[in-house]
Amino acid sequence: MSFRHGLRLLYSQLSLFSRELNRPGCRYVSSSLALSSEKRASDFSSFVARTNTCGELRSAHVGQEVTLCGWIQYQRQGLFLVLRDFQGLTQIIIPQDEAHSHVKKVLYDAPVESVVRVTGTVTSRPPGQKNPKSEALRMQYRYLDLRSFQMQHNLRLRSQMVMKMREYLCNLHGFVDVETPTLFKRTPGGAKEFVVPSREPGKFYCLPQSPQQFKQLLMIGGLDRYFQVARCYRDEGSKPDRQPEFTQIDIEMSFVDQAGIQRLIEGLLQYSWPNERGPITTPFPSMSYAEALAEYGTDKPDTRFGMKIIDISDVFRSVEIGFVQNAVNKPQGTVKAICIPQGARHLQNKDFESLKESAKSQFNQEVLHLILKPDESLKSPLSKFLSEEQQSKLIQALKVQADDMVLLAAGEHEKVCLVLGNMRLESANLLESRGLVLRDPTAFHFLWVVDFPLFLHKEENPAELESAHHPFTAPHPSDTSLLYSEPAKVRSQHYDLVLNGSEIGGGSIRIHNAEQQRFVLETVLKEDPKLLSHLLEALKCGAPPHGGIALGLDRLICLVAGAPSIRDVIAFPKSFKGRDLMSNAPDYITPEELEPYHIQVAWPAAEAEANKN
Amino acid sequence: MSFRHGLRLLYSQLSLFSRELNRPGCRYVSSSLALSSEKRASDFSSFVARTNTCGELRSAHVGQEVTLCGWIQYQRQGLFLVLRDFQGLTQIIIPQDEAHSHVKKVLYDAPVESVVRVTGTVTSRPPGQKNPKSEALRMQYRYLDLRSFQMQHNLRLRSQMVMKMREYLCNLHGFVDVETPTLFKRTPGGAKEFVVPSREPGKFYCLPQSPQQFKQLLMIGGLDRYFQVARCYRDEGSKPDRQPEFTQIDIEMSFVDQAGIQRLIEGLLQYSWPNERGPITTPFPSMSYAEALAEYGTDKPDTRFGMKIIDISDVFRSVEIGFVQNAVNKPQGTVKAICIPQGARHLQNKDFESLKESAKSQFNQEVLHLILKPDESLKSPLSKFLSEEQQSKLIQALKVQADDMVLLAAGEHEKVCLVLGNMRLESANLLESRGLVLRDPTAFHFLWVVDFPLFLHKEENPAELESAHHPFTAPHPSDTSLLYSEPAKVRSQHYDLVLNGSEIGGGSIRIHNAEQQRFVLETVLKEDPKLLSHLLEALKCGAPPHGGIALGLDRLICLVAGAPSIRDVIAFPKSFKGRDLMSNAPDYITPEELEPYHIQVAWPAAEAEANKN
Repeated sequence: MSFRHGLRLLYSQLSLFSRELNRPGCRYVSSSLALSSEKRASDFSSFVARTNTCGELRSAHVGQEVTLCGWIQYQRQGLFLVLRDFQGLTQIIIPQDEAHSHVKKVLYDAPVESVVRVTGTVTSRPPGQKNPKSEALRMQYRYLDLRSFQMQHNLRLRSQMVMKMREYLCNLHGFVDVETPTLFKRTPGGAKEFVVPSREPGKFYCLPQSPQQFKQLLMIGGLDRYFQVARCYRDEGSKPDRQPEFTQIDIEMSFVDQAGIQRLIEGLLQYSWPNERGPITTPFPSMSYAEALAEYGTDKPDTRFGMKIIDISDVFRSVEIGFVQNAVNKPQGTVKAICIPQGARHLQNKDFESLKESAKSQFNQEVLHLILKPDESLKSPLSKFLSEEQQSKLIQALKVQADDMVLLAAGEHEKVCLVLGNMRLESANLLESRGLVLRDPTAFHFLWVVDFPLFLHKEENPAELESAHHPFTAPHPSDTSLLYSEPAKVRSQHYDLVLNGSEIGGGSIRIHNAEQQRFVLETVLKEDPKLLSHLLEALKCGAPPHGGIALGLDRLICLVAGAPSIRDVIAFPKSFKGRDLMSNAPDYITPEELEPYHIQVAWPAAEAEANKN
Repeated sequence: MSFRHGLRLLYSQLSLFSRELNRPGCRYVSSSLALSSEKRASDFSSFVARTNTCGELRSAHVGQEVTLCGWIQYQRQGLFLVLRDFQGLTQIIIPQDEAHSHVKKVLYDAPVESVVRVTGTVTSRPPGQKNPKSEALRMQYRYLDLRSFQMQHNLRLRSQMVMKMREYLCNLHGFVDVETPTLFKRTPGGAKEFVVPSREPGKFYCLPQSPQQFKQLLMIGGLDRYFQVARCYRDEGSKPDRQPEFTQIDIEMSFVDQAGIQRLIEGLLQYSWPNERGPITTPFPSMSYAEALAEYGTDKPDTRFGMKIIDISDVFRSVEIGFVQNAVNKPQGTVKAICIPQGARHLQNKDFESLKESAKSQFNQEVLHLILKPDESLKSPLSKFLSEEQQSKLIQALKVQADDMVLLAAGEHEKVCLVLGNMRLESANLLESRGLVLRDPTAFHFLWVVDFPLFLHKEENPAELESAHHPFTAPHPSDTSLLYSEPAKVRSQHYDLVLNGSEIGGGSIRIHNAEQQRFVLETVLKEDPKLLSHLLEALKCGAPPHGGIALGLDRLICLVAGAPSIRDVIAFPKSFKGRDLMSNAPDYITPEELEPYHIQVAWPAAEAEANKN
């Protein structure tokens, strides 16, 4: 539907056919909405006074003058209206100049469900409009949006897929579905946890980010195999495509190792995978974190396409270019590149400039480009510094062909990998916007990423360590002794599951030894172990070796459904800013209502002033 | 296990066999705990230095001197220890006098898992101890309690029963499992909703008491059949056997009537019922609210036993007793009674006094008693006022037999019913404490209670009306016109499902007409409809007729499992006071942590003073 694509119509002519009072009942022709665009072949606008249906408008229509007929779904003080027909919704923008004041008046008086004809030019939503009106409208009238084919399909797909997962876990593999509390205690470092005031003065519950502690306690409690479709909470302020409450398939098993969890999840996904998406093959390939970083510049490689990062330090070691020499001679210094096949044909100068700009602004890193011309010569500011032998070595190492474009960066290994990993994805986006297909939308590439570091140096103070994932992750069996000597070098038993370049799950084998857990908390992480005393105490009482995983359900369903955003697979999502635009939550409540919880609002100065007046 | 029954042992003698350091692993013999008391027949204490196992101790052992052997599960500064053997746990209280200081010292130094022998006298937990130590201990060391046979059984039963329900709804009947938000807006009259501060100053989310609004919006959104195993929140402070977070099987259907929902639920329970509890027969019997009140004095009748309330106003209309005449001549005035079969044989004078006392203190209502002696004469202070004919009429009306006891009350219909309904249950408890079985523990009596009033007079101001259930309940089709003339007389399309005298579910057909909904909110309930403007607006956009129900999962599983409390079917329940005794939630958090939420603690005067020091 045009509404979904953010298209809108700039009004130029309007006819009001009939005014209608609201009559409760089923005026919204929801059944017709179930027509998907794939199945539509008929011309619905022959013989009648319209050129198109609301549901037909696509990006291709931008700039065309079209005429639509339909019902006024909603209108706002003569600013815009939402027009509905049996196939979809279109937002109609009404010009605000004097010449159109009569239209404004007519619309202001016309109740919703009035029937109108509108002629105008199709526009796409203004670029840079962060919270686009049409998106906000979808959220405000979510119950109407839910009637769309796509939302009906996505929610039903989600329900069915979760049901199959439950059958696999519960019926086939003896897992116990256990509900764990969401009113819990603050966890160490839980800065993103919502707080919930209690009736005891000064005491707060927290909404946990995951049932991590509970699932470990269930293993200690002898439940053996646990799962839960768990509601989790994370207060991240405004992050795109994140929700303050989200759902994970949460799993924990006793007496299991990393391979055991991986085989379980492969079986789970294979069993629950929707037929119409084709079969998936198992086992999923596996890659170490170091390999993923070196070849794809990320811990979640999209393996649907090539353009891998290639180390060309050897070629450049003897090249007399200042910045290259600077880079190569530092510890961890490298020169690396990616090759964009046919990049010179499909990308323009401004594309390369924008890539360069992005590397500069995001990573403060210079990126150079080379093009192999059809006559096999290299076009680049670099080429004059390279001997013919060096040029041919470079072409060989990168397997460059005519019209390919190479992006090259020199510097510290990790940084260069991250930059080129980013360039790789940005170039792919650019190429696809020019009509090429690099990432088959029907392909599903799963990948295990393993052997993560157990600890990371803190950004703000590199002398201190923090958990790469969480403090309960067990060290890699080969690295256990290093834990006590060189903890920064220890790899963990953490594993991530990646699908088409998105992280859809992560888990680990846990520490089940109280002393080791205490050592990690106290000595390595310098955390106050008191906040976790209940877990430390529990680990002393006969904890079986155990491990688990959590799959991000919203993201997984989003990928399976091919939806543009996780908001398209959640019935009532919140906006970027964490608002429910339908009910207008969060909302003000009275000081009297806060009284039982012994809290009061600490108004920022400006608002406190405004409140006084 | 003795631990579960709140028994404890007063220490008199202790031998320390071995001291053990903690060794992580499976020292806790959880598999042996799977022996249920029913299956135990062997004498586990023959030939050895103990008289009993920890798991054997029962109320019957109180006062006996016993010797136990086992491992120290836990000890607290020489005050008490928890002794564990393969069958259970016993709390050992250590005398605090000087004579026993050496024991205290030995215990203080002995690590947990040390092996000891203890001789002492079995005591039950001190009466009147509101939050008994042993119950609190179970919660604090919940992960150990979870290893018990009973908790393992209950949690697995719960998981399996819910899985069967999902199969029935999802696979057999096309329901869609839709997750709805828990960070929502305050609802009108939502005094029991937890608040969650947001990062916008002064704005709060609320944790909803049920997904009521969302499930109606889903019907308006064309989802047709929705269900969810929904987490709900209710802040009721300290109420026994209630939890601040609880779970309901939440269901809503479009184009359905009351009978449709009832048949669905009967099918659902029949399908998911555990085999070992025997089959249940459907359809469930149905009773009007008026009938339930008149015969059982409650809206949730326990129909497993008789002792129904019988109206004997006719017998007493001509009897010259002042208080009876007073009662009978008032509007709604009645005389009613219940007959306790063999009550005179099993109940003593003090029992009757306690019943009388309870009626007086709870309802401010006098209750009289009569006994039919074996010679067929009535023994009662009343009998001298009754003619022989009246006496025989009374005996006939109540079907009184020799040694039966009659409890009689006169007054306004509803009040007398409530009092006698209460007496009926209290008498049953008394009789069962004497060893009689009135309520077969293997029987499951389901009952629909229907035709509730739609509105109730507010207790604090009887001139005003409030919803008997919630403002979205539709009026009974026969009473719709009364809604606009005499709303207090309107019956609703609400239905409750009762099992063995406990309400396990409730639902209704909803109002799907925006005008009717607005009338109920504005004119009848005098609520501000703005808080529900999104729902009112949605009802205008083509709302199908719809209705639903919610089953209280914790209570249902509790009854099916035969557990004494809902805390026995929840993995990590909160205490009476809403505390998590394991992690010690809710807990204090720093003012800095509250800053992003623009709130501060409003300390009560005394604590503010203490905090200063």
